[in-house]
Amino acid sequence: MILKNFIVLEGLDGAGTTTQAKLLIGRCLEQGIHAGLTREPTDHAAGLTIRTILRKQAAAQPQTLAFLFAADRNEHIYSPGGIRDMTGSGQRVICDRYLFSSLAYQSVDCGWDFVRALNDRFPLPEILIFLDIQPCDGEKRLQSRQEREIFEFEDFQIRAAAGYKRALDEYAESGMRILSIDAARDPQAIHREIWDFIFVS
Amino acid sequence: MILKNFIVLEGLDGAGTTTQAKLLIGRCLEQGIHAGLTREPTDHAAGLTIRTILRKQAAAQPQTLAFLFAADRNEHIYSPGGIRDMTGSGQRVICDRYLFSSLAYQSVDCGWDFVRALNDRFPLPEILIFLDIQPCDGEKRLQSRQEREIFEFEDFQIRAAAGYKRALDEYAESGMRILSIDAARDPQAIHREIWDFIFVS
Repeated sequence: MILKNFIVLEGLDGAGTTTQAKLLIGRCLEQGIHAGLTREPTDHAAGLTIRTILRKQAAAQPQTLAFLFAADRNEHIYSPGGIRDMTGSGQRVICDRYLFSSLAYQSVDCGWDFVRALNDRFPLPEILIFLDIQPCDGEKRLQSRQEREIFEFEDFQIRAAAGYKRALDEYAESGMRILSIDAARDPQAIHREIWDFIFVS
Repeated sequence: MILKNFIVLEGLDGAGTTTQAKLLIGRCLEQGIHAGLTREPTDHAAGLTIRTILRKQAAAQPQTLAFLFAADRNEHIYSPGGIRDMTGSGQRVICDRYLFSSLAYQSVDCGWDFVRALNDRFPLPEILIFLDIQPCDGEKRLQSRQEREIFEFEDFQIRAAAGYKRALDEYAESGMRILSIDAARDPQAIHREIWDFIFVS
């Protein structure tokens, strides 16, 4: 199922999903477009638990983490005032990472079918923006970060990149509008291209 | 799959699973039987998150909670030193609540098939002890508790009782040894019956 007004940004670590999400919401608000910004993991209970694991403050098996992401996503979509309610009221929702991150990242250790089945109940966004970056370029951008999360090393990112590629292939005919964009360029140029894809084309 | 040496106690709130688990581990240790006591929700990250929700300190949709229980159970079984490792080393593991609690409780709001599918990957215990209590009798025992958790009210317990009945029916031929026992009696008498079922019969 496609959720109208739901816009998702995806990409490897260092691809700039957070930067682009912020540029996008900023311009929406400037132009008086009713829009909200959200992200995964969320700030709900399950999302906070995931963050402690990503930061290595708690341990979890890969499948445990996949279940936790599904829990967090369920709350994100279906809780009162969540994505379903926001988009249903005509608000555009810009979401920094969504189920394609689970497919790309969790499938590395858990296998594709397990992660796909776990996420089958969740709606797809109307628009998917994929920020395409080479794992080695993402790695360079991450070098300025003080602490690395559990997936933020290049070998893992190379495998996650293959997961994203598979997700884009499998969902090509799903009914989403998909923009795959070279994310190694200037952030403002990328932003303009995303804006035009959503609001002009 | 049946996990040898794995013993699960199940029942409605007030049925006495915790009391019986403690009596059982106490006597095991007295008699020099290598055994460990554990419970769900666990003290892993996902289990702690579940507890905050059960105590109404955080909100979650029913399906979110079902995913969280699956996350917690995965960690419980498969983490290093978890149930799989403990039972594999020849230790008996006594577990206060397991996946039958998910089937009984989460299926009330989420539907049976969803919860069953979510739990299909987890092994079954060698021995399942079901402490059978009428919801109204469980309710009486709960009245002494200072704070009620989200499922601890009689209407819900009546529906969870139906879930337990269905679980016992569906798993009757699964290969588990199942003891269903009248839990309204004296705890020591119940304990003796459980002990004999596990170690004598």
